[in-house]
Amino acid sequence: MEPVKVGLLGLGTVGGGTVNVLARNGEEIARRAGRALVIAKAFTRSPDKPRICDLSGIEQVTDPWQVVNDPQIAIVAELIGGTDIARELVLGAIERGKHVVTANKALIALHGNEIFARASEKGVMVAFEAAVAGGIPIIKVLREGLAGNRIEWLAGIINGTGNFILTAMRDQGRDFDDVLAEAQRLGYAEADPTFDVEGIDAAHKLTILAAIAFGIPLQFDKVYTEGITRITQEDVRYAEELGYRIKHLGIARRRENGVELRVHPCLVPARRLLANVDGVMNAVVVKGDAVGPTLYYGPGAGAEPTASAVVADLVDVVRTMTADPENRVPHLAFQPDALSDLPPLPMAAVETAYYLRLRVADRPGVLADVARILADENISIEAVIQKEPQPGQTDVPLIFLTHRVREQAFDAALARITALDSVKAPPYRIRLETLE
Amino acid sequence: MEPVKVGLLGLGTVGGGTVNVLARNGEEIARRAGRALVIAKAFTRSPDKPRICDLSGIEQVTDPWQVVNDPQIAIVAELIGGTDIARELVLGAIERGKHVVTANKALIALHGNEIFARASEKGVMVAFEAAVAGGIPIIKVLREGLAGNRIEWLAGIINGTGNFILTAMRDQGRDFDDVLAEAQRLGYAEADPTFDVEGIDAAHKLTILAAIAFGIPLQFDKVYTEGITRITQEDVRYAEELGYRIKHLGIARRRENGVELRVHPCLVPARRLLANVDGVMNAVVVKGDAVGPTLYYGPGAGAEPTASAVVADLVDVVRTMTADPENRVPHLAFQPDALSDLPPLPMAAVETAYYLRLRVADRPGVLADVARILADENISIEAVIQKEPQPGQTDVPLIFLTHRVREQAFDAALARITALDSVKAPPYRIRLETLE
Repeated sequence: MEPVKVGLLGLGTVGGGTVNVLARNGEEIARRAGRALVIAKAFTRSPDKPRICDLSGIEQVTDPWQVVNDPQIAIVAELIGGTDIARELVLGAIERGKHVVTANKALIALHGNEIFARASEKGVMVAFEAAVAGGIPIIKVLREGLAGNRIEWLAGIINGTGNFILTAMRDQGRDFDDVLAEAQRLGYAEADPTFDVEGIDAAHKLTILAAIAFGIPLQFDKVYTEGITRITQEDVRYAEELGYRIKHLGIARRRENGVELRVHPCLVPARRLLANVDGVMNAVVVKGDAVGPTLYYGPGAGAEPTASAVVADLVDVVRTMTADPENRVPHLAFQPDALSDLPPLPMAAVETAYYLRLRVADRPGVLADVARILADENISIEAVIQKEPQPGQTDVPLIFLTHRVREQAFDAALARITALDSVKAPPYRIRLETLE
Repeated sequence: MEPVKVGLLGLGTVGGGTVNVLARNGEEIARRAGRALVIAKAFTRSPDKPRICDLSGIEQVTDPWQVVNDPQIAIVAELIGGTDIARELVLGAIERGKHVVTANKALIALHGNEIFARASEKGVMVAFEAAVAGGIPIIKVLREGLAGNRIEWLAGIINGTGNFILTAMRDQGRDFDDVLAEAQRLGYAEADPTFDVEGIDAAHKLTILAAIAFGIPLQFDKVYTEGITRITQEDVRYAEELGYRIKHLGIARRRENGVELRVHPCLVPARRLLANVDGVMNAVVVKGDAVGPTLYYGPGAGAEPTASAVVADLVDVVRTMTADPENRVPHLAFQPDALSDLPPLPMAAVETAYYLRLRVADRPGVLADVARILADENISIEAVIQKEPQPGQTDVPLIFLTHRVREQAFDAALARITALDSVKAPPYRIRLETLE
């Protein structure tokens, strides 16, 4: 089948990330979508600017309407941002019968009602997973994964810049202005940080989440919005002392007579997972009446995390364009004739670190014997715990943590350790993963 | 449009939960799906057994083939479990052109390849979100939400019973056998706990997750499986001492020459979110090459959490049966003509708790004055921090935490507090949510 031709509007962070992800994972994505995707044409205002991506094979144009008007292009990905020209281009693409994928939260929050109505009339899709919480598929989760629930409330850390600032204020005892300046140097915050630190960006996203959760229209102007600029180091410390952490949350709650829509700083009990979401990461807690509390966590911004959501939307659209409805999503994600024969590996080939618990005779030289056997197999030791014997006992626990090693080598060492005279009970080992 | 008729196989925990969720949320679900769902017929072996759900309007039958053979029924929900009769019934339903929704992980892990092949031939859908991690929509996340990624690895707490036991061993210093007995009393563990504590249930689920993540066939027999029965209180304590927690994980990792598929106890750094997933909750970390690390958390079992996933699958099927492909999922989750006019509430009507930071004169009676104003507005105080003045300062910080109250009442109190002579700087308040 012919590849599906995609037109990009914008070659900045998200556009560049999208080009890179499609180039790197194109084959795997085609196995999932049932059809290849190619970026045929890309609009950029400044064609000579250095890019994060390789543009070979992509026609660059400096007039965005050359993308929107191209009859070869089936899907337009709007990655410019803002609400002026983006709105016109998206409506123009819909008018011409093209499907649209967008990462533009302001556009959806402010003009979504209009855009969706036009798309329904024209029978085209408008997908916007990348507009909220970057790579976390929270739109799909709410629209489809939790479709059986009456959503009671949701609360999210949906602005990475704000969370980066609050995390640094807590971890490093620094003041708001100081951390903001660093965030600007690192590129996490804009030169004009108003959208992030005053909560406007989060309010755009909350508008979208609340509409999907409760089945209400998009109504950005009804969101109460308060930023984080007045939080002091003192507040951060008192919150800790009281068992809380300060997070900047978007909260939507269903009440009997209406819905609460609010973005503001919030104390959260320190033991909650949401209180432990740090740095630029995002997370959304959704409470459904059937499922109970659920949480979705991941990078909320950045080139490739956002591109992950853009490409997921492209795959969604391509699957719908290409497959019979019943086979839209393959059972095992990949097309049945495109499964891989990558073999499951034997445990001997697995690489992991280990915790090893021994019970050994309480006499000199035992630790040296065990350490020698581990060294013989090239197993590095990360930590050792040796305890004094309990009254009346002649043997003691001896605990090792190792660095990563092949299980085959560890098992060989373990067999020799088990055979030592000084080892008094069958050893027990637990694998250790740092999950990085 | 006619409602879609669903036939249930099984009226136990998950079947009963599904009946309840559809009864309670039926109107909202129809607004999402574009069409009503009704359970027309339900098979149960023991029609006189007490149920957790109201069965009025549902025809009960004691022969499951009466459900499968009923030409009125468009979707069969298989909620019996096990692999013998369930396999025959599912294949029988597919043969008769019915769509299938199942919560049966063993069935999919062991017979999925056969079932999916038959379903594709017959052009029917087989959905199985409820088979892994209960109400967490992890299948949809992997198949669709992360479709742009090359998945590098995933690691999950995917057996609630095992996690309940390990959590209690850590928090309460109890031994495995003791906690297992309690889990059995509470209904979290079966009389024969082998499937849970030996990792077989987790291996079924890991088989499914790995196939979807990597595009490999289902191959349960290749999963290395080790249980938690040999973990002692000693191990739990040493792990803590070293900065780790012990979790029972299912891990699938892509390597150059193959895939690791393994279920075993694992030390995880204590600061990781996954290490802080406690009790019967489940969570899966997925590392994609574009998105980075993401985490999905929620209840992994139980009547309604599992029903949440069953009903989401039913909605998926109904949307595909009913809508044009382009309009399969409404933009805002609910059908455009079925949005709600639930109004956004003014902040004055919001109920929340508050942190209040004051700077007050260091003299007797100030705390009493503020407390009196709060009491006048019926605001209960949860905690107070009053600090000594710094050398050379005449005013001191005074911090309050309040219980939940209407914002209107809090604002009224705050205006009076701000006007006090003894209050030396503009007060600052942060809302507080327990997220329960």
